[in-house]
Amino acid sequence: MSETFWKTSLSAVEENKILIRGYRVQELMEHCSFGDVVYLTFKGELPKASEGRMLEMIFTSSTDHSFLAPSIDATRFAASGGTPLQAAVAAGVIALGEHHGGAIEQCSKMLQEAVANGSATAEIVRSYRDRKQRVPGMGHPIHTHDPRTLKLTAKAREWNLRGTHLELAEAIAADLKLPLNIDGAISGIISDMGIPWQYGKAFFIIPRVVGLAAHAVEEVTREKPFRAIKMSDVTYDGPPEREIPLREQD
Amino acid sequence: MSETFWKTSLSAVEENKILIRGYRVQELMEHCSFGDVVYLTFKGELPKASEGRMLEMIFTSSTDHSFLAPSIDATRFAASGGTPLQAAVAAGVIALGEHHGGAIEQCSKMLQEAVANGSATAEIVRSYRDRKQRVPGMGHPIHTHDPRTLKLTAKAREWNLRGTHLELAEAIAADLKLPLNIDGAISGIISDMGIPWQYGKAFFIIPRVVGLAAHAVEEVTREKPFRAIKMSDVTYDGPPEREIPLREQD
Amino acid sequence: MSETFWKTSLSAVEENKILIRGYRVQELMEHCSFGDVVYLTFKGELPKASEGRMLEMIFTSSTDHSFLAPSIDATRFAASGGTPLQAAVAAGVIALGEHHGGAIEQCSKMLQEAVANGSATAEIVRSYRDRKQRVPGMGHPIHTHDPRTLKLTAKAREWNLRGTHLELAEAIAADLKLPLNIDGAISGIISDMGIPWQYGKAFFIIPRVVGLAAHAVEEVTREKPFRAIKMSDVTYDGPPEREIPLREQD
Amino acid sequence: MSETFWKTSLSAVEENKILIRGYRVQELMEHCSFGDVVYLTFKGELPKASEGRMLEMIFTSSTDHSFLAPSIDATRFAASGGTPLQAAVAAGVIALGEHHGGAIEQCSKMLQEAVANGSATAEIVRSYRDRKQRVPGMGHPIHTHDPRTLKLTAKAREWNLRGTHLELAEAIAADLKLPLNIDGAISGIISDMGIPWQYGKAFFIIPRVVGLAAHAVEEVTREKPFRAIKMSDVTYDGPPEREIPLREQD
Repeated sequence: MSETFWKTSLSAVEENKILIRGYRVQELMEHCSFGDVVYLTFKGELPKASEGRMLEMIFTSSTDHSFLAPSIDATRFAASGGTPLQAAVAAGVIALGEHHGGAIEQCSKMLQEAVANGSATAEIVRSYRDRKQRVPGMGHPIHTHDPRTLKLTAKAREWNLRGTHLELAEAIAADLKLPLNIDGAISGIISDMGIPWQYGKAFFIIPRVVGLAAHAVEEVTREKPFRAIKMSDVTYDGPPEREIPLREQD
Repeated sequence: MSETFWKTSLSAVEENKILIRGYRVQELMEHCSFGDVVYLTFKGELPKASEGRMLEMIFTSSTDHSFLAPSIDATRFAASGGTPLQAAVAAGVIALGEHHGGAIEQCSKMLQEAVANGSATAEIVRSYRDRKQRVPGMGHPIHTHDPRTLKLTAKAREWNLRGTHLELAEAIAADLKLPLNIDGAISGIISDMGIPWQYGKAFFIIPRVVGLAAHAVEEVTREKPFRAIKMSDVTYDGPPEREIPLREQD
Repeated sequence: MSETFWKTSLSAVEENKILIRGYRVQELMEHCSFGDVVYLTFKGELPKASEGRMLEMIFTSSTDHSFLAPSIDATRFAASGGTPLQAAVAAGVIALGEHHGGAIEQCSKMLQEAVANGSATAEIVRSYRDRKQRVPGMGHPIHTHDPRTLKLTAKAREWNLRGTHLELAEAIAADLKLPLNIDGAISGIISDMGIPWQYGKAFFIIPRVVGLAAHAVEEVTREKPFRAIKMSDVTYDGPPEREIPLREQD
Repeated sequence: MSETFWKTSLSAVEENKILIRGYRVQELMEHCSFGDVVYLTFKGELPKASEGRMLEMIFTSSTDHSFLAPSIDATRFAASGGTPLQAAVAAGVIALGEHHGGAIEQCSKMLQEAVANGSATAEIVRSYRDRKQRVPGMGHPIHTHDPRTLKLTAKAREWNLRGTHLELAEAIAADLKLPLNIDGAISGIISDMGIPWQYGKAFFIIPRVVGLAAHAVEEVTREKPFRAIKMSDVTYDGPPEREIPLREQD
């Protein structure tokens, strides 16, 4: 058989048939939660225990954080410019970068590599300290006892989903005397599920589009268009008004 | 109290407290499915019956449609250019426009206005025919018996979630001798839940980011970077190679 | 010859050769300004007179409008989330919607259709008034004598680039007793160049990416990451903190 | 004076006045090319010699590379989904990542740091070889004698804009026996202008939005909506169609 340019192991579509990792979509709809289907999509197999419920709980934890999130703010402005819902949501999704949910990718990578290599907690902490970098997934500017993190880690324990990765994350937090944050908790849990770190940010993107969509609709339905930061909230510290210098070619 | 520039009814955040429509996030995590929380976020109140399960089913129906979707294809190329996961996903979200999930917004608007105004099926169909426009939510290029639509409409009936909007959508489809498509089925169901049409596209965006993330990760982890459409698959029908004309200023 | 799936009249690439509308790119680089090349790309032919200079002037007019623009603000937040330059710029580009540069598309369409149909000024104004819609391209919330508009319209006259479309735009503004705004001036000028209205927004997108890139770099190089709107600037008007109701399934 | 949350040195706006780096926008329109204004925006001062012309030439070099570019392809699909022009363009801008224009950032950083540190060519090449990484800005999959690069480097020499950075880039290419590519040439030139590497990608984003806009308009005006990769061009190598396993909770 000749090689095609495109290749996928995720899904297949033909007339009246949609397969997700081999399962007919209508049967997934009948028997599985959304959390189960996300697990299936990323891992290739359906969960055997409470992993789907745990993913639902992760998603519920992260739909919205009000205006205190660059993503929500970016979407508010994009919506205010008069753009359709999906585009306004996309502007916010873009903002979910290294400093905003991105720590799930970084922290999952750290945990998965450390467990694979058998690295000790103290060794990991030292390596970040030596490079003068913050350990991802630790500490929060506002929440010292983040209710999301506490609930997730308690349930992981209760449902027997806490393994070496989440343990390591908690050990690192203890060593640093910082609370494990929401990114760190999610990282430990999905790593214990065997989900590759490359998927990390997805666990924040999926729920956050709910909040982004709601803020976009609220902006458009309750506010006047074209809202922007007022110059009275801005300090201009560039050159004062000035004349264009004469140049040779003028 | 002086008016602030920003205003929201969706969520509030203070130290160690996150409220979604007034509920503490940790309690939503404990007691509600992700579907419940989406309903709450968009409607303002928790569902009383099976609405949350129905939303989960809608989400499960629409996570992926393989390469047969402009959104997935846009994300594949964005990922191939070497962009972080959230940005590659955003490129696909942008593609969820008028012709790709966008019909949920159009069809929900049509159904909600028609039910509000008491418009009859024949009247609606005629008004689109007169404007030579396609009725949104009807017909599919591939699926004549879409398993997603059949499952959703059957469950809406079983769970007593089928109301005047879904009935109207089905009546329009019957009148047109076209199958109700996935956009049309979702539109009928969310309209019967009382969700404003402005949220319509969100019911496609939320699940599709799952497929977009999975395709982005698959592209990056299995393929070489910088893949693009080959010129052998492109017909160039512009001017042949030519010389720049001399102009006055040259 | 068999039909390929893709087709373009814009450009062709083969080994060591890049053709833009038939011209070798290195000769365009040698003989043409960037404004000339934009004209060529959109129209298919090189300009015969000062059109390229006029496009450069349009571009210079619209690179930045400081924080007073939803696009710049969206990019600031996206950059603050820790996303690469091109993604932060894209978030701002998304914001260039119906209310923010989008009027160039709407106004160009109006002018091109009106000139094609021979519609009179009063008739156009009345049709918008009857539909209770604002005429696009007219009036500005801040600039009563917008220096950009004044310069563009003066130069169009000086360089003999003012034709029936710009005349019509000015007549409509006079009828409404509103200043022609920057969108309206650009619309009149590009329409007189024969550029189809579908390209309208591009004349704002092209220059604005300059400002978006500069603001993104300034945010990243001068500020701490993860800046967001403070809750003290937000009024929460949703439900007060409340308990989750008991439901049957609990 | 109390500190404001926002701060910028780029631009200021008040009624009927727009300042870019202190200059009134209408005077920039009168006296400067678009290339001059980009230089001013990024550097803070107007160019003294041919830098503005050189930037125009860089922009002209990179407006389009037909379908052989992930950015153009992403925009084609986004446009086909039925999204407004600016959003379709944004999808393509997102694709301008590490492997697609992103080398301008990497190569400029390498050159600027090497010149600052006085690193020798051989040392730089060896450090990449030791890390088994490709040196950015060198080699091209299609163009062995890229007409864009040849023109840019020739003009830099002719206009006395070739300095230590471009020299170093050419020396590295010679050492590697690879042609300097378009990213490498742009990197050398802008680094010799003293433009910080953080702006690197902007020199590709600015011109490429021209091609992205043109492809988006061409897609929408010449093609049917909702075009996607056909499953006949895709190999599915996931699990075969299968039954959902019974689980405890079922």
